[in-house]
Amino acid sequence: MKLLFVGDVYGQTGREMIANYLPRLKKKYQPSLTIVNAENSAHGKGITKKIYNQLLENGADILTMGNHTWDNRELFEFIDDAAKLVRPANFPDGTPGTGLCIVPAGSAKVAVINLQGRVFLPSLDDPFRVAERLIREARKTTPIIFIDFHAETTSEKLALAWHLDGRISGLVGTHTHVQTADERILPNGTAYLTDVGMTGPYNGIIGVDREAVTRRFLTQLPVRFEAAPGPGQLGAVVLTVDEKSGRTTKIERILINDDHLFFD
Amino acid sequence: MKLLFVGDVYGQTGREMIANYLPRLKKKYQPSLTIVNAENSAHGKGITKKIYNQLLENGADILTMGNHTWDNRELFEFIDDAAKLVRPANFPDGTPGTGLCIVPAGSAKVAVINLQGRVFLPSLDDPFRVAERLIREARKTTPIIFIDFHAETTSEKLALAWHLDGRISGLVGTHTHVQTADERILPNGTAYLTDVGMTGPYNGIIGVDREAVTRRFLTQLPVRFEAAPGPGQLGAVVLTVDEKSGRTTKIERILINDDHLFFD
Amino acid sequence: MKLLFVGDVYGQTGREMIANYLPRLKKKYQPSLTIVNAENSAHGKGITKKIYNQLLENGADILTMGNHTWDNRELFEFIDDAAKLVRPANFPDGTPGTGLCIVPAGSAKVAVINLQGRVFLPSLDDPFRVAERLIREARKTTPIIFIDFHAETTSEKLALAWHLDGRISGLVGTHTHVQTADERILPNGTAYLTDVGMTGPYNGIIGVDREAVTRRFLTQLPVRFEAAPGPGQLGAVVLTVDEKSGRTTKIERILINDDHLFFD
Amino acid sequence: MKLLFVGDVYGQTGREMIANYLPRLKKKYQPSLTIVNAENSAHGKGITKKIYNQLLENGADILTMGNHTWDNRELFEFIDDAAKLVRPANFPDGTPGTGLCIVPAGSAKVAVINLQGRVFLPSLDDPFRVAERLIREARKTTPIIFIDFHAETTSEKLALAWHLDGRISGLVGTHTHVQTADERILPNGTAYLTDVGMTGPYNGIIGVDREAVTRRFLTQLPVRFEAAPGPGQLGAVVLTVDEKSGRTTKIERILINDDHLFFD
Ligand SMILES: [Fe+2]
Ligand SMILES: [Fe+2]
Ligand SMILES: [Fe+2]
Ligand SMILES: [Fe+2]
Ligand SMILES: [Fe+2]
Ligand SMILES: [Fe+2]
Ligand SMILES: [Fe+2]
Ligand SMILES: [Fe+2]
Repeated sequence: MKLLFVGDVYGQTGREMIANYLPRLKKKYQPSLTIVNAENSAHGKGITKKIYNQLLENGADILTMGNHTWDNRELFEFIDDAAKLVRPANFPDGTPGTGLCIVPAGSAKVAVINLQGRVFLPSLDDPFRVAERLIREARKTTPIIFIDFHAETTSEKLALAWHLDGRISGLVGTHTHVQTADERILPNGTAYLTDVGMTGPYNGIIGVDREAVTRRFLTQLPVRFEAAPGPGQLGAVVLTVDEKSGRTTKIERILINDDHLFFD
Repeated sequence: MKLLFVGDVYGQTGREMIANYLPRLKKKYQPSLTIVNAENSAHGKGITKKIYNQLLENGADILTMGNHTWDNRELFEFIDDAAKLVRPANFPDGTPGTGLCIVPAGSAKVAVINLQGRVFLPSLDDPFRVAERLIREARKTTPIIFIDFHAETTSEKLALAWHLDGRISGLVGTHTHVQTADERILPNGTAYLTDVGMTGPYNGIIGVDREAVTRRFLTQLPVRFEAAPGPGQLGAVVLTVDEKSGRTTKIERILINDDHLFFD
Repeated sequence: MKLLFVGDVYGQTGREMIANYLPRLKKKYQPSLTIVNAENSAHGKGITKKIYNQLLENGADILTMGNHTWDNRELFEFIDDAAKLVRPANFPDGTPGTGLCIVPAGSAKVAVINLQGRVFLPSLDDPFRVAERLIREARKTTPIIFIDFHAETTSEKLALAWHLDGRISGLVGTHTHVQTADERILPNGTAYLTDVGMTGPYNGIIGVDREAVTRRFLTQLPVRFEAAPGPGQLGAVVLTVDEKSGRTTKIERILINDDHLFFD
Repeated sequence: MKLLFVGDVYGQTGREMIANYLPRLKKKYQPSLTIVNAENSAHGKGITKKIYNQLLENGADILTMGNHTWDNRELFEFIDDAAKLVRPANFPDGTPGTGLCIVPAGSAKVAVINLQGRVFLPSLDDPFRVAERLIREARKTTPIIFIDFHAETTSEKLALAWHLDGRISGLVGTHTHVQTADERILPNGTAYLTDVGMTGPYNGIIGVDREAVTRRFLTQLPVRFEAAPGPGQLGAVVLTVDEKSGRTTKIERILINDDHLFFD
């Protein structure tokens, strides 16, 4: 079976890239499950109910989140009914929503976990221990487990992936908005990619208007960040997973932008 | 003309990758200048005089550094004579060494600048302003200017590259030790890659022994970091630069490891 | 001569403490100059033109700022005319406003400098070097120099004070909103206090509503910070300075709250 | 009953202050229990078995620690037998040692808890939740509960103290090495002081040699930190606690240095 995972959808440009390319990607790769990180889908800041529905209609089966989960307060109102949304599992006890979702995918079931790193990010619970607990829980139902690890540093991402090698089908990073080139299958069958990259403006700075970000660096004054104008990019990855064992046998990066055109 | 840039050489494994592959890379790509980031070349921590000489003998023309520049105190003793070593230029006034080096490369001259980011890193001088000053200085001699921007976040790297687009031949990032897949040529001729990746142990965590890093994350106790054992990887990039204008016309990523073999 | 310095005025409660106690403090101590940190005077976030005028009317001669200087964007509109406002001097070149103000105080002149630390705070210019430059400039006019060093850590504050001992009359810290008990006169005549403390709600958490801050710590979710209700406190310090030499001979802390009543 | 708490003992100077003044302090205040923070007692970095024994012989009943707990690796060897040592309770499960110690004090029992903050410090478990759990446990035995909260920011310390008001006898901060002047008794009987201050060199920078720290700030180069020479200071606090209710009725700060002499 195949899993398709698309990186941080950023604002309107990102949503348009989803609308335009997700159907074509699904036609080409025929994934049994499509997971989309949506933490920046509403103008770069969180998600709304309308966008939640729109992303599902455009082909996403599960949405994952990250440090921007709660930027748009509308989520607090609909998260209890948002059965397809997975927020970082290592928020403290009592946080609305869930960090683990087990869904049918073809004839199998897939567990999707979202975790957030702690290096240079807020003080959540330990993602290593939360991962182990949720994996034990998920493996009662299925050996096919996918983790979107939303983290800043390469070391935290690499460490968690190696630590879980053989217990999950794949760990793919999000948050830096730049796709890395280090896709590989670890010795015990876990696929890994440090960051899948963003789905949003190709000519911004991690999605944001360049002029604003540059002014911020040059002046250290507060600046209002707007989504960058112009053409889009899409970052994704496809995992080919053995349904019985949950081991991944192939990992392919996908990058679509004006310099890398998509061919059906 | 071509410029070859190799990312953070990490410990003995990294130095062996240089010894084994740099001659083959130079034969294949015929660069006019070879630049190697050496901030981790001595057991992951700085550089020694012996390693400085060895890297030059193995084919490096210029060595750049980063936040680990001063980890091995031996550098303080030989930096005044290390004409081929460029440390981050935005260390405060009075810092030993230089952050800009202009060297002959074929019939042309190339200016190499090393800068360090400030996000999640120590409080150095503003890399944007220092870059602008050094570029003005370098352009009196040559339009071919290469910057190794040693920084943690994708936003700071992207912002500086776009800010300098058209004033330099290329800006390539180091420090995260993971190669990114976003190589491109910006509209005004500046080549860009967020991170060129590390040259060192392929099965470690950014070069470090996995067991130690994992224990650190799991226990939050102090841990002695050793270089990881096992096979190596090499991360590099080749820029094809127009000598007259200094504009880059082509950028190619190079990644060598057990999953990506090198072909001469 | 005496200098009176009052710490971070926070919101309406802080402004009321100023209105109620500044006249009484001035009557009691007879300072030649009264300096008030106003970075939180507008609902905890920056300053407005109305509040700027109000604080001066209530007896402040000079207002200093900090990391919240620009929180209220109204400042950008009136800072060019705000001759009594000093913002951190180590913002980059081109920042509106000034970081040094030399004003008459009785028969003498006093230089007031505002600086911001860099540890756990944004990447401004080096406060040590900027301090030295501004002190050289000020000393052409007067030996009486007062620095409000707005910084997070005790080490950065202590280090700058000791470094400048003998070159300034006093360095007093702001930003932590809690008064420290370590007032002293350093060997060469510079008065020092790590933090003068806040002027604002006595029963909040550094001025902010307790319930909101606690919820933030417990949930790690975004929370809207409001000024805390209830009675106020005022933190201040009085320096007795020798006008000829600029050396301070006496430093007294002032703390007013429900547990420490003020006696005229 | 009275509780005496002495702040971060730093190096030899700090240990000498303990040897010289702890007997006199105990004679004057007659505490039922004496608690000493010892995280910097071995040259500023952790503790040794010899120093552990020496501090107990000099009058400490319980030693608390902080972020420097593990700096001296000798502790790993003797912590299992160090019944009087309490390290931050919110280190992850499996950490050697304990974070809660219940000891006899006169005719009563006192629970001593050590916790470490997470703002600008490593990612430990949530100190708020760990505090609540340990308080529930301790209250089965005694209502007299003292917390040494080792944290950087004033907001985290204030928030935890207010959150626990009425459930503990006192929360006193350590780590910044500068005594604050905000001692108070919160409405429900919990004594609070943001930081008790250091016991060590009076003329250093938070204990460290001034020249080294200043050079670090000026050069951003690595510097070896040594304990500062010269005279000492001692920071402490005395709580008067009602044995039945566990409520504190009085809190007194103690600061001993060349500017504040001690009178028996
Ligand atoms: Fe994102
Ligand atoms: Fe993110
Ligand atoms: Fe490196
Ligand atoms: Fe680095
Ligand atoms: Fe403030
Ligand atoms: Fe502040
Ligand atoms: Fe300490
Ligand atoms: Fe500490």
